[in-house]
Amino acid sequence: MASSYGHALRVSIFGQSHSPAIGCTLEGLPAGIPIDFDALQRFLDRRAPGRSKTATTRAEADVPELLSGITEGHTNGAPIAAVIRNTNTRSGDYRELRAKPRPGHADFPARMKYGNWHDVAGGGHFSGRLTAPLCIAGAIALQALATMGVEIVAHIAALGPEGIADESLDDLHLDEAQIAALRTHAFPCISTDAAARMEQAILDAKAARDSIGGVIECAAYGMPVGAGDPMFDGIENRIAQIAFGIPAVKGVDFGAGFAAAYLTGSKHNDPYRMDGAAIRPQTNNAGGILGGITTGAPIIWQMAVKPTPSIAREQRTVDMDSGEDASLTVRGRHDPCIVPRAVPVAEAACALALLDALLDDNLFMPPAPNDAQHTHRSHEQRAQ
Amino acid sequence: MASSYGHALRVSIFGQSHSPAIGCTLEGLPAGIPIDFDALQRFLDRRAPGRSKTATTRAEADVPELLSGITEGHTNGAPIAAVIRNTNTRSGDYRELRAKPRPGHADFPARMKYGNWHDVAGGGHFSGRLTAPLCIAGAIALQALATMGVEIVAHIAALGPEGIADESLDDLHLDEAQIAALRTHAFPCISTDAAARMEQAILDAKAARDSIGGVIECAAYGMPVGAGDPMFDGIENRIAQIAFGIPAVKGVDFGAGFAAAYLTGSKHNDPYRMDGAAIRPQTNNAGGILGGITTGAPIIWQMAVKPTPSIAREQRTVDMDSGEDASLTVRGRHDPCIVPRAVPVAEAACALALLDALLDDNLFMPPAPNDAQHTHRSHEQRAQ
Amino acid sequence: MASSYGHALRVSIFGQSHSPAIGCTLEGLPAGIPIDFDALQRFLDRRAPGRSKTATTRAEADVPELLSGITEGHTNGAPIAAVIRNTNTRSGDYRELRAKPRPGHADFPARMKYGNWHDVAGGGHFSGRLTAPLCIAGAIALQALATMGVEIVAHIAALGPEGIADESLDDLHLDEAQIAALRTHAFPCISTDAAARMEQAILDAKAARDSIGGVIECAAYGMPVGAGDPMFDGIENRIAQIAFGIPAVKGVDFGAGFAAAYLTGSKHNDPYRMDGAAIRPQTNNAGGILGGITTGAPIIWQMAVKPTPSIAREQRTVDMDSGEDASLTVRGRHDPCIVPRAVPVAEAACALALLDALLDDNLFMPPAPNDAQHTHRSHEQRAQ
Amino acid sequence: MASSYGHALRVSIFGQSHSPAIGCTLEGLPAGIPIDFDALQRFLDRRAPGRSKTATTRAEADVPELLSGITEGHTNGAPIAAVIRNTNTRSGDYRELRAKPRPGHADFPARMKYGNWHDVAGGGHFSGRLTAPLCIAGAIALQALATMGVEIVAHIAALGPEGIADESLDDLHLDEAQIAALRTHAFPCISTDAAARMEQAILDAKAARDSIGGVIECAAYGMPVGAGDPMFDGIENRIAQIAFGIPAVKGVDFGAGFAAAYLTGSKHNDPYRMDGAAIRPQTNNAGGILGGITTGAPIIWQMAVKPTPSIAREQRTVDMDSGEDASLTVRGRHDPCIVPRAVPVAEAACALALLDALLDDNLFMPPAPNDAQHTHRSHEQRAQ
Repeated sequence: MASSYGHALRVSIFGQSHSPAIGCTLEGLPAGIPIDFDALQRFLDRRAPGRSKTATTRAEADVPELLSGITEGHTNGAPIAAVIRNTNTRSGDYRELRAKPRPGHADFPARMKYGNWHDVAGGGHFSGRLTAPLCIAGAIALQALATMGVEIVAHIAALGPEGIADESLDDLHLDEAQIAALRTHAFPCISTDAAARMEQAILDAKAARDSIGGVIECAAYGMPVGAGDPMFDGIENRIAQIAFGIPAVKGVDFGAGFAAAYLTGSKHNDPYRMDGAAIRPQTNNAGGILGGITTGAPIIWQMAVKPTPSIAREQRTVDMDSGEDASLTVRGRHDPCIVPRAVPVAEAACALALLDALLDDNLFMPPAPNDAQHTHRSHEQRAQ
Repeated sequence: MASSYGHALRVSIFGQSHSPAIGCTLEGLPAGIPIDFDALQRFLDRRAPGRSKTATTRAEADVPELLSGITEGHTNGAPIAAVIRNTNTRSGDYRELRAKPRPGHADFPARMKYGNWHDVAGGGHFSGRLTAPLCIAGAIALQALATMGVEIVAHIAALGPEGIADESLDDLHLDEAQIAALRTHAFPCISTDAAARMEQAILDAKAARDSIGGVIECAAYGMPVGAGDPMFDGIENRIAQIAFGIPAVKGVDFGAGFAAAYLTGSKHNDPYRMDGAAIRPQTNNAGGILGGITTGAPIIWQMAVKPTPSIAREQRTVDMDSGEDASLTVRGRHDPCIVPRAVPVAEAACALALLDALLDDNLFMPPAPNDAQHTHRSHEQRAQ
Repeated sequence: MASSYGHALRVSIFGQSHSPAIGCTLEGLPAGIPIDFDALQRFLDRRAPGRSKTATTRAEADVPELLSGITEGHTNGAPIAAVIRNTNTRSGDYRELRAKPRPGHADFPARMKYGNWHDVAGGGHFSGRLTAPLCIAGAIALQALATMGVEIVAHIAALGPEGIADESLDDLHLDEAQIAALRTHAFPCISTDAAARMEQAILDAKAARDSIGGVIECAAYGMPVGAGDPMFDGIENRIAQIAFGIPAVKGVDFGAGFAAAYLTGSKHNDPYRMDGAAIRPQTNNAGGILGGITTGAPIIWQMAVKPTPSIAREQRTVDMDSGEDASLTVRGRHDPCIVPRAVPVAEAACALALLDALLDDNLFMPPAPNDAQHTHRSHEQRAQ
Repeated sequence: MASSYGHALRVSIFGQSHSPAIGCTLEGLPAGIPIDFDALQRFLDRRAPGRSKTATTRAEADVPELLSGITEGHTNGAPIAAVIRNTNTRSGDYRELRAKPRPGHADFPARMKYGNWHDVAGGGHFSGRLTAPLCIAGAIALQALATMGVEIVAHIAALGPEGIADESLDDLHLDEAQIAALRTHAFPCISTDAAARMEQAILDAKAARDSIGGVIECAAYGMPVGAGDPMFDGIENRIAQIAFGIPAVKGVDFGAGFAAAYLTGSKHNDPYRMDGAAIRPQTNNAGGILGGITTGAPIIWQMAVKPTPSIAREQRTVDMDSGEDASLTVRGRHDPCIVPRAVPVAEAACALALLDALLDDNLFMPPAPNDAQHTHRSHEQRAQ
């Protein structure tokens, strides 16, 4: 079940970098959720390559076709399926790729697992391109969450060896100005100054035929109290399980996260106070989650993205056919830093995790139906 | 499915801090694995309270009873169930606990989720005590893994606000001396000097009526290449999902982890070389995992443990019954730092995750059977 | 995951016929459901052996101990675990049983699957005794369903080679008289005349050192419209998956069932009519299910129970150790017919399947909470 | 997870009768299985409409496009996705269909479940057309099973109110002549005489503007001993769960099945004997399954298919908009009997269930790899 995720909401990703198409299915979404196709496309565009000078120059359209599950612009309760055609399908000689595993890529373990049948072209099913269908599913989840007032945003918290830092997302209240900035900026930072410095760092890495990584911070505002479960289906477990499915993610933490290990309990504990009739934590070191369950404070989490493994420098590897040491220079155009493009992917992953948790917990409040004959009628109409 | 984990191997945890018993079930283990009950008890003793001056003084036996799934000292293929009796079952007045949620604990979201039916005594199902049955299941998994040469060890990598650091586990080769040190030291550090400093830091926190956290590093040596899956069932996803089920864990990372975000690709990529007939990464920033799949290098991961939320100081909270702000002083004896006791829990979690992955992938090599009539006979005996 | 069942509600069964204990866990039940322990025990007593002259004379208490998940007589949201001690634990020489598989039992495939580690004593994990923990979980599910007005009853529809038939359960309306009869009769028939004839048939089979089977019919009254799913999680799929987990069940059908294959469409289709404001099928050949989803009519299903494989006659088998043909006379006291004792097991299985479906579909209406601070408060209390 | 099935092998079905496309995904198939596209198409053609005078006259191509998971004619280990375009996509006025539920169809419960968002056109996701993608997945599973010598065949065992019977499949040995007959006959009977009588019965039903049902028998030859699990993941549970996902199936039984209820134990038990070095049941009332596990005898099961609910006669229903009784005459061309077209669907369902069980149990023996660098190399290459 490697490429599927979720319980009540189930997303499944298929495709390889050079297969006829890539796509996703999304099961378990209630009927009646309006889908805004333009907004979905705009969301995908944030992930698509070729948008800026810091990304790969390969231009792809990434226009999804929705095959099922939607009628008259609304979910109909049946599984949603969507595909994106690969225009650049397999061709050429992959003998070198097959023989010489690229350091930092999945090539070597994949060949050991799948044998020569592994589709090496463009990384096959391990390609970062597979985050496009994850974003289709995530965009739909984001739209569903928005109907009940849950907003998810992410940005680059830190980038590169110098750790260029953006302003932090407000961890207690949705800050309209921050959201507005993130929604309008082409580069996913709150601070335009940080954005400029980060862009320069990426260009510098490119010039050095090297690559850099970074940390993405993501927040979900408006989650109700009481979502998630103890033990292995807590909100942390759920977000971590999907976030580590994004290629290049090597760490995930929540709230104060790794820094919590260096705080005392008296500093780390979030005290409660009454806020009118509501109970609210006054600080949010917990990242909105205690015992795996939402506290009503914003969900705050971070993911560490490693530097792009494809670099233009010669690297040491082996030739698996001859069994000898070898050198390899990775060809093609690659992002010197995938962090900016991974920002919407973090939002997509977070949305899928949270919507699944809300559906599991019966806390997803679907939009008001358009007629009186909807699901809840059934409660009144029982046999006997 | 909150309190269950795994696919081919399925562990399920039950019990509350003050229920008649706590326990676990473990399904999917092949028949014929020898179980060493003494070793199992020794493993549990590492987690048990009351072992040292740095832990809570409450003495509990934590002797499990194995109810099923084992015959003549070997797994028999049926589900294993084990229970530990709670000697200290519910009594007393929990009104204050029910009304006043402890900062940093699950009390508030649990009450919002379960209403007044939530079992607040001792934290109920959210209690750290529930890591005892996780350790029973984990100890069995560790024994199963050992039959095929997989060894898992953990230690405290860093502790407290000053970040007292232990020596790192060797991330390329199992270092017998390190393992021997960890197996003999009462305090889970490789370096006795670091251990002494950490113990003092815990005593200082206790004296200050405060608590501290830390980072645990865990390594699995001997994993075959090719275990794990792309996307959402990779080794990272699996370990993270179970590790975030350990109370107080707020971050998980692999290999270079969060530090990878600050490396360049040329420094982070692990080059390959031939080592006789085998292909091996020369460094292990990947933590033994690429594309979710094992590379044959040791699995290296870390988890951040927050400071114990139960501190003896007065804290601000609310009274949920009166709807007013309130203060709370948590009573009882509590560990000023749970990190030492969480070390075997990390090993247990890692063992369950890796054994499940090996079973999913058909890479678990069970011990040689004791007679000729074992499972594999079936391959030869087909109808037609 | 062999011995676990369900999605939102997850039941797991453990134990062997002669292990220290047998038991179950039940995860996913909402908090606040009242549990009537006396009613639970009475339900278990219906399954227990030694109740009548038609059953095995072995007397067992089958008194469960509830270990977790229940506080002050109500579910608390944490997993429920329950155990029944086996008084008759393993002893004696099982060499013959191990070597000579009993015809009609799981002995042979179990030994091929688990090797000599298979626990043969009393059938191990395959024993009919394992239906006792299924009945514990089922009794709890039945009590939960009753809180929302769903009533489940079963009876023996037909028994033995002559097909002695009981009156059919009303398939359109709950018939109070039928239910009252079934609840008071010691032998699970509506008609006392049919009961008398069936009891005699069982005694005749016993006298002939043989065994007989039968068909059990089960009905669920009061299910809301709209529960269940298309394809593989329909109500039929769910009931069938759990019902085939009851030892000796070899067929399951719904409504007209196999007889539907011999009807014309014009006779089989159930026409609708208005019944006040409600829409109701006028006949119920569908057994209350169309497209996998409940229609509001009673759920009606049947299961075929094979004759008890343990008979006192000499039978032909093989000696797996010597590899030669052999004969076997099964010793011990066995039910000449397990159908009467399987009746409450059918009700338990049906309850677990339906409650799981209702929870999956967010159609389970839990009992009113005892205070204002319950789950649904959380909807009003959102961050922001 | 309504439209997904399986554990190690996971099939997911998407699409509606009039959506842009229908399709499936298939996860978990090992790499290296050769796929014969012509054989796949021939298999689909057996299910396709318009093949004979007994089926609907609507001609559809049902040519699948394989989007991913296959490279150079072999599975590559990544998820397989396939789609079939719907040429006849939604148009026209569905007001009457939406308001007046067709008796015997899912219209009414689907509208109660999904509200007005339910896609009523052509039955939406509930359409029998969705068995086409099930057959794509099943055809691939059949090809995988064939590589290890497992053959699955089905035929019409009985048809119509008169119960016209075909010869039974041999339940102890694969009978080459029977298989050959079934593979060449256009109408899925072993006996040409039975086929002729059945075809006439279908034409008679059509002439009477009515419909008929029947019983399909399916056999799997060559399954190894020891596949499947006790309790809820036995072979019966698995086949039943998927078979009840085929529209119109209302009953499933195994071996002697419902007839077993009317046999004595002495007649029903299958005695064992040595057959050279192998142990074989001498009869097969068990249908090749004891305790949920394969015995090595052929798997034999039957499914009851109800008469097509769409009949040309006027039927009684209600108008859900006006809340009044109403009459309905179903328009369009419909199969007067879907049983012949359901025969390959039964084979597909059986293949998916058995392949999943074999993969779960590590009993699937994949085809020999084409090079030395395949998966099992990994066992030799361990770190340390």
